[in-house]
Order: sequence, then C-alpha cells, then structure tokens
Amino acid sequence: MRKILVIGIGAGNPEHMTVQAINALNRADVLLIPLKGAEKAYLADIRHEICDRFLTNPACRMLDYAVPVRRADGAYEDGVNDWHRAIAAIYERTLLTEVGEDETLGLLVWGDPMLYDSTLRIVDHVRTAGHVTFETEVIPGITSVQALCAGHGIALNRIGLPVEITTGRRLAEGWPESARDALVMLDGVQAFRTVEDPEAEIWWGAYLGTPHEILLSGRLADMAETITETRRKAREEHGWIMDTYLIRRPAAEAEEGAA
Amino acid sequence: MRKILVIGIGAGNPEHMTVQAINALNRADVLLIPLKGAEKAYLADIRHEICDRFLTNPACRMLDYAVPVRRADGAYEDGVNDWHRAIAAIYERTLLTEVGEDETLGLLVWGDPMLYDSTLRIVDHVRTAGHVTFETEVIPGITSVQALCAGHGIALNRIGLPVEITTGRRLAEGWPESARDALVMLDGVQAFRTVEDPEAEIWWGAYLGTPHEILLSGRLADMAETITETRRKAREEHGWIMDTYLIRRPAAEAEEGAA
Repeated sequence: MRKILVIGIGAGNPEHMTVQAINALNRADVLLIPLKGAEKAYLADIRHEICDRFLTNPACRMLDYAVPVRRADGAYEDGVNDWHRAIAAIYERTLLTEVGEDETLGLLVWGDPMLYDSTLRIVDHVRTAGHVTFETEVIPGITSVQALCAGHGIALNRIGLPVEITTGRRLAEGWPESARDALVMLDGVQAFRTVEDPEAEIWWGAYLGTPHEILLSGRLADMAETITETRRKAREEHGWIMDTYLIRRPAAEAEEGAA
Repeated sequence: MRKILVIGIGAGNPEHMTVQAINALNRADVLLIPLKGAEKAYLADIRHEICDRFLTNPACRMLDYAVPVRRADGAYEDGVNDWHRAIAAIYERTLLTEVGEDETLGLLVWGDPMLYDSTLRIVDHVRTAGHVTFETEVIPGITSVQALCAGHGIALNRIGLPVEITTGRRLAEGWPESARDALVMLDGVQAFRTVEDPEAEIWWGAYLGTPHEILLSGRLADMAETITETRRKAREEHGWIMDTYLIRRPAAEAEEGAA
C-alpha cells in the first residue's frame, strides 16, 4: 500500500531534526515541497538546508508544487476548508501520478504536525475522497513552544498547574477561565496588550530556533511596549515575523495549595 | 564559567533524540545519571541505549547518584520542595567537586525539560543557593504529548480552538472551563472516568515511544472500561505504567463559528 509520512522538522533550527525524522526523510521515495506560498523565503532556505544536510537517499525524488492562495473573503472557516481541499487535490494527484503503489510520499511540516498545523487534516480530506488508499505515519518534531521555553530556560507549567495553549484571536476575547498560564500562538493582533493583570509576566520569542531569534521577558506591563516595538521593527527588517509567548499570572492561593 | 546543559532526550524512543541533543550530549564533560529512584529499570535501559548509541566523546565522565526518596507524609507541595532541595544539593556538590570551572555538566531529562519536569526548578535552587555560579542551556526534546498525537495520527488542537494541558488530579476536580480539548498527564487516578459527556472522545497511550506502546481511542463512554482494564493489566505485567491522553468534547456552536 502507499504511505504518507508526515514529518515534523522542528521550529527553524536544522538541528531540531530527530534521528527518527532523518530516517523518515530517507525512507521517502518522493518528497513534496511547497514552492513559496504561505512560507517565507527564509524558511524555505532552512528547509533546503535540512534536505541538503540530512537527505542521503539518492533515489528520493523531490517534487515541488505551487501552494494555492487562501481566499480572504467570506467566512474564515470556509476559506480554510476550501484551501485545504485545494491542497488535498495536489496531494491526491501526486499520490496517483508520482508515487508507486508500494512507495512512500514524505511531507515536511514545520514544528510538529500535531500543533496548529493543517497537514493531517488535509491528508484526511484525501483519505475521505476515497480515490486512493494509503496509510499514514506521523513523526513528531520540536515545536516553537519548546524552542520558546528552551530559549528562556523556563518550564511551560508550574507544579501541578494547567496551561492553556491558545491563539491570539482567543486571548483577545478574554483570559482563559481555568488556567493562569497561557501559551499563545498565531497572534496577529498582539493580544498580549489586552491582558491587564499588573502582576502578569511574559516570555516572548520570535524567529525561534533560527539565527534571528529574539527573546524578551519581564513584567508584561513593563514589556508590552518594548515587545510591540521590537516586533514592528523586526517585521520591517525581515519582511515577516512569527512569534509565540507565554503569559503567567499569579496563581490564586487556593490553586497553589492544591498543586 | 561552568555550564549546566539540560537535555531533553525524548519520550522513550532513542530515535526521538534531536541532532541538537546528540551534540549537547557530546559537549558535556560530565553526565550526571540518576541511579534507580523515580524511574523504572526499563527506562534506565533506554537511557543507557541512548548514551551507548549517541555519546561519542571519549573524554566524557559519567557519574551516577542515588535519587533521594520523596517523603509521602505532610503536604504534597512541602514534600516536593524538600525533594527538589535534596537533589539540588547533589547537583551543587557535583558542580563543585567534579566539574571544572570551564566545564559543562549534562543532565538528561525524559521528554522535554519544559513539561511537567522538575529539573529546571532544581537547577534554580542551586543558582539561588549561590555557592556556585554557572550558566544554563536547555535543549528541547520530544514529549509524550507529541508521541501520543503522532501514534494516533491526530492534531492536538482543532482549528483555532484552545487546548488545556492539565493533570489527572485537576481533571478529577472538574472539566476545564475554557477549553473543549484537554491533554492529561500524570494521571494516577484515571480521571477520564469522571468525564460524563456522552459525546466525548478519547485518544489514550501508554509507554509512548517504546516497543511496549499501547494506543486506544474511541468514544470515551465506550472505551473507559477497556482503558481501565488495559492499564491495570499492563501495569501488572510491566510493574509500572506511564500514560497520557487527549479528551475532546464537541465544540459549542458559538466556538466552532468563531474558529
């Protein structure tokens, strides 16, 4: 049977590659690589570096494809679903025309396929369509959450306390009700500025794992302006930005005791 | 200055080791390895396998230490703090007596040092005590959360929705208020049995990343008994168990639309 290998390649540092991911890369008969699209030239360079450095299977065929453009009009969810289906059609065509019946197609995913990534959902679309049968294997990879915590030398959670992983859009709607620690991804609106707790602390990072990595931390009230300004300048300089942060509010007394 | 390298070694599969972790292993002048203690003989074997396979620096000195026993009487938090201080004293003594002033001490951590692990807090105790100065560098590693999702081939989050990472103890007190997806670690009480939503689904895993890995999934109401029984038998067979799971409840309509 055909196989799709969904390979997490880490957050931007080629050395985030696991031995498992390197072996998976070399098990693929075909690697399908997006051409431009959602990702920036800089990230594409890192992906090339990963392939140059770790791909040692000379029989592997590398194919690229133009990433469909996501429609910005209409409902957000509809736009995302249409976009996923367009990519699913490319995966399906590749399986049917480029990948032999006992061969393996490798897909490279930034971070880990489990976290705020669509590849597994797109692969499900292909399976559901039913025009080609295949099995799937997923290889985990280091996420930007882990690169953030490693960079700052901090734990994500406090002893026995929960953490909510959420999006900037969600945080802007209000602080999570059940956690005092929030890890925020995909924040296009700098939602950290909506958190008003004067005792909140923030650990922020951009371009995590790459040579351009920026780390800032401190009392949120003191740092919000600095982070906003640093973010603006870095985005101007590089033409893009990806950032992630942890905000920690003091635990309620009842929670600390129960930890 | 002395350095402590806190190295995430993955969830139990030696191939979870990243290139960064392998290089860190080989940068350490001293590796400090716990002898028995909290961890089971089986895990100790995997750690030996990791060192045998990836440690190529012949100058590296491997030291072991007996892990202090955690007091079970008194308040949970006090017991944990005392235990951390006892381990901190061992780290401190090792730095002062076994690690030269320009040398590096490596500590190996299961999973990732950021997630429900105490090593960074213990290292903070050593720093706060002030008897030895050092810098710290953290190397992220694949967590059991990632091994769980990879094993099941699922995403941790739904599009645009938050996920709460929490403990069995917390879940037993009630479902998180702000997330419909809960990833549960450290569950000694099978707290999944307290979730009463008939539409909830569970993805459960034990011994993740190891050859003994067990994966079960389905509607929670249908699977709770099977998981409890499987867990009991596996624990009996192996003498220990570590398990992790994701429970997903249907999103409220308002949430889905906003995703």
